[in-house]
Amino acid sequence: MTDLSQATREALLRVGTSTLTGILSRRGLRNMFMQEVRPIRQDLPRMVGPAYTMRFIPAREDKAGAGGRGPLQRQAMEECPPGHVLVVDARGDARAASAGDLYVGRLRARGCAGIVTDGGLRDTDGVHKTGLPAYHRRASSPPSGIVHHPIDINLPIGCGGVAVYPGDILVGDCDGVVVIPPDIVDAVAEEAVATTLYDEFAEEEVARGRSLVGLFPVVGEEAKRDFEAWKKARSV
Amino acid sequence: MTDLSQATREALLRVGTSTLTGILSRRGLRNMFMQEVRPIRQDLPRMVGPAYTMRFIPAREDKAGAGGRGPLQRQAMEECPPGHVLVVDARGDARAASAGDLYVGRLRARGCAGIVTDGGLRDTDGVHKTGLPAYHRRASSPPSGIVHHPIDINLPIGCGGVAVYPGDILVGDCDGVVVIPPDIVDAVAEEAVATTLYDEFAEEEVARGRSLVGLFPVVGEEAKRDFEAWKKARSV
Amino acid sequence: MTDLSQATREALLRVGTSTLTGILSRRGLRNMFMQEVRPIRQDLPRMVGPAYTMRFIPAREDKAGAGGRGPLQRQAMEECPPGHVLVVDARGDARAASAGDLYVGRLRARGCAGIVTDGGLRDTDGVHKTGLPAYHRRASSPPSGIVHHPIDINLPIGCGGVAVYPGDILVGDCDGVVVIPPDIVDAVAEEAVATTLYDEFAEEEVARGRSLVGLFPVVGEEAKRDFEAWKKARSV
Amino acid sequence: MTDLSQATREALLRVGTSTLTGILSRRGLRNMFMQEVRPIRQDLPRMVGPAYTMRFIPAREDKAGAGGRGPLQRQAMEECPPGHVLVVDARGDARAASAGDLYVGRLRARGCAGIVTDGGLRDTDGVHKTGLPAYHRRASSPPSGIVHHPIDINLPIGCGGVAVYPGDILVGDCDGVVVIPPDIVDAVAEEAVATTLYDEFAEEEVARGRSLVGLFPVVGEEAKRDFEAWKKARSV
Amino acid sequence: MTDLSQATREALLRVGTSTLTGILSRRGLRNMFMQEVRPIRQDLPRMVGPAYTMRFIPAREDKAGAGGRGPLQRQAMEECPPGHVLVVDARGDARAASAGDLYVGRLRARGCAGIVTDGGLRDTDGVHKTGLPAYHRRASSPPSGIVHHPIDINLPIGCGGVAVYPGDILVGDCDGVVVIPPDIVDAVAEEAVATTLYDEFAEEEVARGRSLVGLFPVVGEEAKRDFEAWKKARSV
Amino acid sequence: MTDLSQATREALLRVGTSTLTGILSRRGLRNMFMQEVRPIRQDLPRMVGPAYTMRFIPAREDKAGAGGRGPLQRQAMEECPPGHVLVVDARGDARAASAGDLYVGRLRARGCAGIVTDGGLRDTDGVHKTGLPAYHRRASSPPSGIVHHPIDINLPIGCGGVAVYPGDILVGDCDGVVVIPPDIVDAVAEEAVATTLYDEFAEEEVARGRSLVGLFPVVGEEAKRDFEAWKKARSV
Repeated sequence: MTDLSQATREALLRVGTSTLTGILSRRGLRNMFMQEVRPIRQDLPRMVGPAYTMRFIPAREDKAGAGGRGPLQRQAMEECPPGHVLVVDARGDARAASAGDLYVGRLRARGCAGIVTDGGLRDTDGVHKTGLPAYHRRASSPPSGIVHHPIDINLPIGCGGVAVYPGDILVGDCDGVVVIPPDIVDAVAEEAVATTLYDEFAEEEVARGRSLVGLFPVVGEEAKRDFEAWKKARSV
Repeated sequence: MTDLSQATREALLRVGTSTLTGILSRRGLRNMFMQEVRPIRQDLPRMVGPAYTMRFIPAREDKAGAGGRGPLQRQAMEECPPGHVLVVDARGDARAASAGDLYVGRLRARGCAGIVTDGGLRDTDGVHKTGLPAYHRRASSPPSGIVHHPIDINLPIGCGGVAVYPGDILVGDCDGVVVIPPDIVDAVAEEAVATTLYDEFAEEEVARGRSLVGLFPVVGEEAKRDFEAWKKARSV
Repeated sequence: MTDLSQATREALLRVGTSTLTGILSRRGLRNMFMQEVRPIRQDLPRMVGPAYTMRFIPAREDKAGAGGRGPLQRQAMEECPPGHVLVVDARGDARAASAGDLYVGRLRARGCAGIVTDGGLRDTDGVHKTGLPAYHRRASSPPSGIVHHPIDINLPIGCGGVAVYPGDILVGDCDGVVVIPPDIVDAVAEEAVATTLYDEFAEEEVARGRSLVGLFPVVGEEAKRDFEAWKKARSV
Repeated sequence: MTDLSQATREALLRVGTSTLTGILSRRGLRNMFMQEVRPIRQDLPRMVGPAYTMRFIPAREDKAGAGGRGPLQRQAMEECPPGHVLVVDARGDARAASAGDLYVGRLRARGCAGIVTDGGLRDTDGVHKTGLPAYHRRASSPPSGIVHHPIDINLPIGCGGVAVYPGDILVGDCDGVVVIPPDIVDAVAEEAVATTLYDEFAEEEVARGRSLVGLFPVVGEEAKRDFEAWKKARSV
Repeated sequence: MTDLSQATREALLRVGTSTLTGILSRRGLRNMFMQEVRPIRQDLPRMVGPAYTMRFIPAREDKAGAGGRGPLQRQAMEECPPGHVLVVDARGDARAASAGDLYVGRLRARGCAGIVTDGGLRDTDGVHKTGLPAYHRRASSPPSGIVHHPIDINLPIGCGGVAVYPGDILVGDCDGVVVIPPDIVDAVAEEAVATTLYDEFAEEEVARGRSLVGLFPVVGEEAKRDFEAWKKARSV
Repeated sequence: MTDLSQATREALLRVGTSTLTGILSRRGLRNMFMQEVRPIRQDLPRMVGPAYTMRFIPAREDKAGAGGRGPLQRQAMEECPPGHVLVVDARGDARAASAGDLYVGRLRARGCAGIVTDGGLRDTDGVHKTGLPAYHRRASSPPSGIVHHPIDINLPIGCGGVAVYPGDILVGDCDGVVVIPPDIVDAVAEEAVATTLYDEFAEEEVARGRSLVGLFPVVGEEAKRDFEAWKKARSV
């Protein structure tokens, strides 16, 4: 179980994945945003939490549990620690479901922070009703075992083309999911809050007609002074 | 025209495609859920009805009707029986539309139950306004004849990677569309209602913190007793 | 900067992309609808305006601006003329963003008419809040420079599989984006308004149970008379 | 069974698919070349013959013949007329085979002219040994019935994104397969022979250093005279 | 290290993957043929051996070995047991290499039986010269570490959409690679040899003009008698 | 026209694209290998030369040259400097040809070094006969103008997902094509020759049974000494 400080968790809940991918990119981490993984609905709450992983391999008729839902899958729902995000490596295959509303409901009841798969979720209306942030490739009703076989828990995996190690911090918003290494998450969160504040200032300036020159992406001296004044005025 | 009993139709309107694919899978039918076929909007009513099929092949400039909308397409809209779902084999090609709002409006006016294509629908706002459940791959404005040539009606087809025979029962919800063979549809519907009731019970239990062990997917003795009590209490 | 008459602009704001692709197809223009380019949200206002283009090529670590956001991108936001649509050729690659909310906000503040990319947009909630019509392939948070390098402005480009020449007229609705050559846009708009009026009449007729025969897509004498009467009654 | 004159057959055996697609395109037929359909080996003999078609739909466990190879498939091998090409609509799906060496061997023994599928062939070494021209998407060993169900014979189909009507003339070379409407095949073949002769002349000229200006694709007066002289010298 | 009897190995070297997938399918194993995995050249020797697996996840700049070739990869080359096939789960991603000629040369020198990846191999000319059977998706020159991070050895993996457990028997021919569970491999091999003999008989019969009826795929009494006579004549 | 020293050209003709991508990757250039671009035949000579580029956008019926082959295309064949490689940005679209044997023959006759497209080539047998190294996605017979419109010459382009600037050095072997910035090409070539020599040594060592430990990819002291001795023995 990974420690994620309350301050960092709260900070991450207030910043966007675009801000975070920008910061990670400047630190040399260029492949941290999951491709083709999206929220099941547009109005989900934001998601923040350390990763707890499950790996699927293709199903095979001669393996116990093929065609059904193995105990490993249920175990993941029972053991994913509170505050954590269950991340499923479904090899990008959404022909059958990675999980459904009862499993997601159990994660929710146990205080988990979200579920992410690069395959599909089923019962998406039910999943949505649990209130747990849930990300997938697309809705998929067929039972998991037709395509997938859960093979192990909490090993490093790939999800949406990104490496996810147990304990990595996942942040999700309406645009998708970003992965943050835990050893830099506090610094990244702090920087993200500052960047977000500046973006808020810049958005207001842009909305009232200010040019991007000296404002964004390169910040000139004048913009720096104006930003300081803006912060003072808002008592930030 | 296929008979679909009123009781079965009503039952199917109350169960999810995930429940149905689960039941079909246990009966050995593993490929009954259309891939990459989704509702045009999230708030559609559910869809239930027997399939009436239309097949497209690629358009060719030397064939009458190429570049336009052939009489066969209009015929499908005029002859798809009330209560039925028009299912279009568009070879998964959404570069041009399979149908638009006037065609869908006519289906609606004639009492049809829905339209499904593995290609695209155009005028999706207008289609949505007709109120008819409509499923496709993605919105596509270009006229059908640029890409498609309607070639025959009510033959077995493929749609979304699933075989659809005329008279098969189609059920659609927010997650997609499942195909049910008509000879087992009554039994499947009955089982689905029972499963749905149990799922409702299990969801409540999960929401109040009960473990999945003995509850789902494997149902233990205790859960069976609790379920009976729950049903009694609700006078189901 | 292209002239687009106020009358034509207003006409185009009232007609659908399906009507326009139909008219263009009858004039022999069969590939004018962008594939896999969709509105960032379903509730966007319609978009009409001449194209102002920007071209991306793949990023390369040895080129200035790689890994960051080059001055060319900002220049596009500052120079896209009011009333115009910024169209980005991202080679269909949505692994990184084509633009975000500050850039889109600047386009909005400067009176531009929209933004279209066959890649991805980031900060889609912020983009949505600007109110500017925005079309993309899918949301994508990573900064542009990880994947893209802006290379030139206002050359002919490809976007969503369609050729876009600077000054072409773009029209977007909930189904997507269509491109209209400027030399025929007045005639196309006029025809589209007439077609839309007939469609409105036909929709009403269909809704009250009239057959498609002689009504759509082929219009018979009776329908012509009824349409004239309908127009008179509505004083159109 | 389609008549294809011996003269036209021989002419088509000597011209390339690129020459034929060029001629068809100038006649307004723009989509006659199968996409992603290639010879199983580079050293196949050329293929010419009228189309005899078979259509697959997705397999389903409740349909007789699912999981095995139905009588319809064998019937196609026994009844495809001599000199004809068996064309299979496999919906572009190569996850299981469309046919193997015994089936192809039977076609060969019965004097058929080739086999084409937009799915896969199995036993490609054995298929190659039969000497019959064979085209597919890629090699695929699994038995047909895992994925496909043969549903009808000699209806119009799609193959490789092209409409194929029974009796259409198919021509295959190392680059792929082109479809020619039978009512224009004699004229197309004649034109193709003439074009091929000019191309041969032009290739020689180009090889010895002549500029393309006035030679290709636009043919100037000088090139016309030189071509006549070249033909005379070769007594063509 | 898995035992594979010499008799079974030799039997499997003489039968095709199409014969094996047919036998496995009749035993209910329907997904044992790797998709989009092909020999690097057409003239490779056949491949037979138990699987020794390596798993890749996406590379990440903050993980040791990213950008380079980690010790795990070398370890796999040094420890894959003689007679075994190294199978790499590259998530179907061929943007960078899974291995090159030095690694493959080492496998060859150590007496391994082959290498299979659902990603790409580099130096394919050098790999070919080693003589080791090698299967991949397509050639790919970039060094592994740009895209892949080797994460563990000899766990169950997916490769080409098929589950591969350490010790599974892999067989490769010019069409691709099939996976056989070790507990049935002797029976499968025996059946495959018998089937192959019958196929050889049937091919000869077909080549001399015999109908498929009663010969293939259903074998009638007469064909059974003829086959017995054919075997006697060949003293098989 | 770019200068490429004879020494560097000869060096590059003797090294593999895998060696070059490795060297470029160590210099921080990670995306220089074209994806899905392959030689038209396996037995092509290697290709080395500076890039001369042509850009295609999608064809449009209202633009001169649509449906035919424009003068720009011919101009590229006439003006690509001797020793250079013509690189075509076809947006990865192989539905129609990028060039055919007459165009390629002209390049050859004029002393050009190769042709590369991320679309398709037609007349591949004829192209092969010219002897010019030619790379594409797959064979495609339809005339260019059905899909493509040549729009400009010698601007920076994307090809196979890689940025190509005029004057970049392209190297092709049987595995594909790599792009090298001209300002580092001499150093890269020199390093590649040295690396290739070591690889040759290592291959021999591996073939005779030496372990990879200390040999590859990390080179230990002993291997360094042995390599020196090997070079001395071969008088390199």
